[in-house]
Amino acid sequence: MTSIGIIGSEGRMGVALAAAISEAGQRSCGVDKGGNIVRLASDSDVLVDFSSPAALEATLDACVAAKKPIVIGTTGLEERHHYLIDDAAHGIAVLQTGNTSLGVTLLAHLVREAAARLDADWDIEIVEMHHRKKVDAPSGTALLLGQAAAEGRGISLATCSERGRDGLTGARGHGKIGFASLRGGTVAGDHDVIFAGPEEMITLAHRAENRMIFARGAVRAALWLVHQKPGRYTMPQVLGL
Amino acid sequence: MTSIGIIGSEGRMGVALAAAISEAGQRSCGVDKGGNIVRLASDSDVLVDFSSPAALEATLDACVAAKKPIVIGTTGLEERHHYLIDDAAHGIAVLQTGNTSLGVTLLAHLVREAAARLDADWDIEIVEMHHRKKVDAPSGTALLLGQAAAEGRGISLATCSERGRDGLTGARGHGKIGFASLRGGTVAGDHDVIFAGPEEMITLAHRAENRMIFARGAVRAALWLVHQKPGRYTMPQVLGL
Amino acid sequence: MTSIGIIGSEGRMGVALAAAISEAGQRSCGVDKGGNIVRLASDSDVLVDFSSPAALEATLDACVAAKKPIVIGTTGLEERHHYLIDDAAHGIAVLQTGNTSLGVTLLAHLVREAAARLDADWDIEIVEMHHRKKVDAPSGTALLLGQAAAEGRGISLATCSERGRDGLTGARGHGKIGFASLRGGTVAGDHDVIFAGPEEMITLAHRAENRMIFARGAVRAALWLVHQKPGRYTMPQVLGL
Amino acid sequence: MTSIGIIGSEGRMGVALAAAISEAGQRSCGVDKGGNIVRLASDSDVLVDFSSPAALEATLDACVAAKKPIVIGTTGLEERHHYLIDDAAHGIAVLQTGNTSLGVTLLAHLVREAAARLDADWDIEIVEMHHRKKVDAPSGTALLLGQAAAEGRGISLATCSERGRDGLTGARGHGKIGFASLRGGTVAGDHDVIFAGPEEMITLAHRAENRMIFARGAVRAALWLVHQKPGRYTMPQVLGL
Repeated sequence: MTSIGIIGSEGRMGVALAAAISEAGQRSCGVDKGGNIVRLASDSDVLVDFSSPAALEATLDACVAAKKPIVIGTTGLEERHHYLIDDAAHGIAVLQTGNTSLGVTLLAHLVREAAARLDADWDIEIVEMHHRKKVDAPSGTALLLGQAAAEGRGISLATCSERGRDGLTGARGHGKIGFASLRGGTVAGDHDVIFAGPEEMITLAHRAENRMIFARGAVRAALWLVHQKPGRYTMPQVLGL
Repeated sequence: MTSIGIIGSEGRMGVALAAAISEAGQRSCGVDKGGNIVRLASDSDVLVDFSSPAALEATLDACVAAKKPIVIGTTGLEERHHYLIDDAAHGIAVLQTGNTSLGVTLLAHLVREAAARLDADWDIEIVEMHHRKKVDAPSGTALLLGQAAAEGRGISLATCSERGRDGLTGARGHGKIGFASLRGGTVAGDHDVIFAGPEEMITLAHRAENRMIFARGAVRAALWLVHQKPGRYTMPQVLGL
Repeated sequence: MTSIGIIGSEGRMGVALAAAISEAGQRSCGVDKGGNIVRLASDSDVLVDFSSPAALEATLDACVAAKKPIVIGTTGLEERHHYLIDDAAHGIAVLQTGNTSLGVTLLAHLVREAAARLDADWDIEIVEMHHRKKVDAPSGTALLLGQAAAEGRGISLATCSERGRDGLTGARGHGKIGFASLRGGTVAGDHDVIFAGPEEMITLAHRAENRMIFARGAVRAALWLVHQKPGRYTMPQVLGL
Repeated sequence: MTSIGIIGSEGRMGVALAAAISEAGQRSCGVDKGGNIVRLASDSDVLVDFSSPAALEATLDACVAAKKPIVIGTTGLEERHHYLIDDAAHGIAVLQTGNTSLGVTLLAHLVREAAARLDADWDIEIVEMHHRKKVDAPSGTALLLGQAAAEGRGISLATCSERGRDGLTGARGHGKIGFASLRGGTVAGDHDVIFAGPEEMITLAHRAENRMIFARGAVRAALWLVHQKPGRYTMPQVLGL
């Protein structure tokens, strides 16, 4: 039995993770804000973090010190967080992802493929909807899908995004990838990637019915990661894509 | 036969209007940027304007001087344009609308009804998609639908809009009406009004296959407006809603 | 505290009903296939039935004998079942509905309104999706929405349905209401009512995230029904539509 | 300049083909029902047929006799028509397809890929919508997409289809591919391929704004086919997929 440590065990994802770990027949332990992460890292075989970017540095330090792998599903990461992850990955196995579901991982693969086949005359737009309590936009999954589209097309997402359209925007930038975020109700997560071409349109979409799919995917990733050597990993590797 | 004058006759909507006027068995005349609007007003029985806000003041002056009614479908109007229209409506019949299609006019009616029946625990989001050349966001139609929702709920759209979400937005504002704009390809105009409640969602949507529906609706409105006395009118009145 | 009796307490809806009754601070009791319905009727203040049409006659007899109102959400009812309900409604209050959610009840109201405003040149299509275990098609909710559309248009659903299109169907019948049923995964219930007109389309849609919304609506209906005198009632009355 | 012969030149697709051929700077000729196909085959460099299955045998005979390649976009083909095409392909180049658009061709590729990656616990449903005048169901494109899904999953579409669901259907067949057809208005062609898994769903969709995209794709295929040796070809080959 693998012991999986949950960072942020009192949050919505923390509760779902505990249920998914139990469903998978494994053992969970956890800490919430202010808890002893060093001890959690020592007590666990692998950790899962869906909390907030604020605690990431301390969390990674604890994992490296204890030589324990970690799955990071936290959203809202900035460039400096990615540097921290790269550093930690010299000592431990780290899997960081904007989305842990099987469906989204496959969707990203299809988006990359479509973007590689269609020329820049097909405009790419990504629209996502989440429950009213989500505090950041676009979602980590939307950015993950945008990254897949940018890779497929051979461009840099950083310089090609068009976000938060409002007012006199002028015509759409050629070759840009647009993002829009809807918020409302209790929606677990909808994502549409639209390729709008001349008089025709392709849409590749994913819809999550509830957050258990993310928890289950994270547990699957954790059970895989525990057998990997140090380095930085991604969800497609877990699924063998 | 009614003579319908087109402001902006060379634009995409101008060309569609000429076709719709001919289809309806009427006569069209028109001017483009820099043309003689005073003469057009004198030569027409009624005018239709889908050009830009810049020329609106001169156009209204010409209509009032010639005592000719006018249908205004121009988007991007600001508060001062609405004051100009109110003034002109003392002397002539003016119908201003963000959308001239039968379907959107009915949709706005349904949105008002739904917003009146559902409490503020149902979050309202409006998402629209238009072709890549559109220069303003949200679309006039999205704002028209937002206005209908605000009226139904008894709130002011001006103080309740949430637009251009991007970055660390915090949780969705309670009772807000959100807007998002997608741009791409040759899409004539899609609008979705979403009511996202606790574990269920209602969506009221309209999709235009091409801009002829707007031209036909504008011609229908013009032929109705020519028989009205001075005042400010709306599309639901044309359709008897 | 109201005591609510559940017919079919072991089924998926039975379990959801027990949870919703508890959530609402009321008391539940229940029987499953082969259970003593006469005793359940005697022990309850009001009953809720989401089981199967087979047991409906015995259930209604028990309710009438015990003078207890009943909410019937069972799908797959035939004409003779409706006669049984009409009969029972002389002695007790009966609310029969294809869907107990607030959202669907409002949607049916909007569908009736739209159908009343649009002429028969706007084709009506109803498409629904449910989980793979559902055994009948179209869903009771799809038929309820079709009934609302037929009422709005002033036609009879029985003579105007177009179902199960396959093969050489010929052109669509003018004025018909089409139905299509999708099945798959764990979908709790999606319904789209499409009005397809000349070059434009209106879609009125509902999406249920899980079956708790139906259970909660049924409990709300039961708590309302307990105060009504004998007769046949509908969901819009519960919601004051 | 290539001379492209249109079978069914008076039909809706025939008119669109003539426009697309002219747009591409080529020359068109054509026959309608009862016309002289032998002479058309002799006068053309390549033929395009979007008429009906009834005339297919005579058309293929004329093409083989004149040694002219042909693009066949006719829908409603049966097994015997495919045998006729196979026979003809010994003497001439034949490209038969349920859909000639670039977008649908790519979509079929993505559907095959997704079906190959997801196990049979993900139910596949295909839903299409077309204008009210379409006489057969499902559309040729829906069947093409179903074929792609079946190939990806390694099953036979012939034995795995579930069509025209209506009444007491029982639970969905495990591993089946479902089809549903909507008809209404002037819709040029919408197709959704749904993969419904446990608590999540992927949808791959295509939407045609008008039939010119099919005409342009057919012309592109014809101009490619004119350089091929005898054999049977498909759209992915035209696009190098």
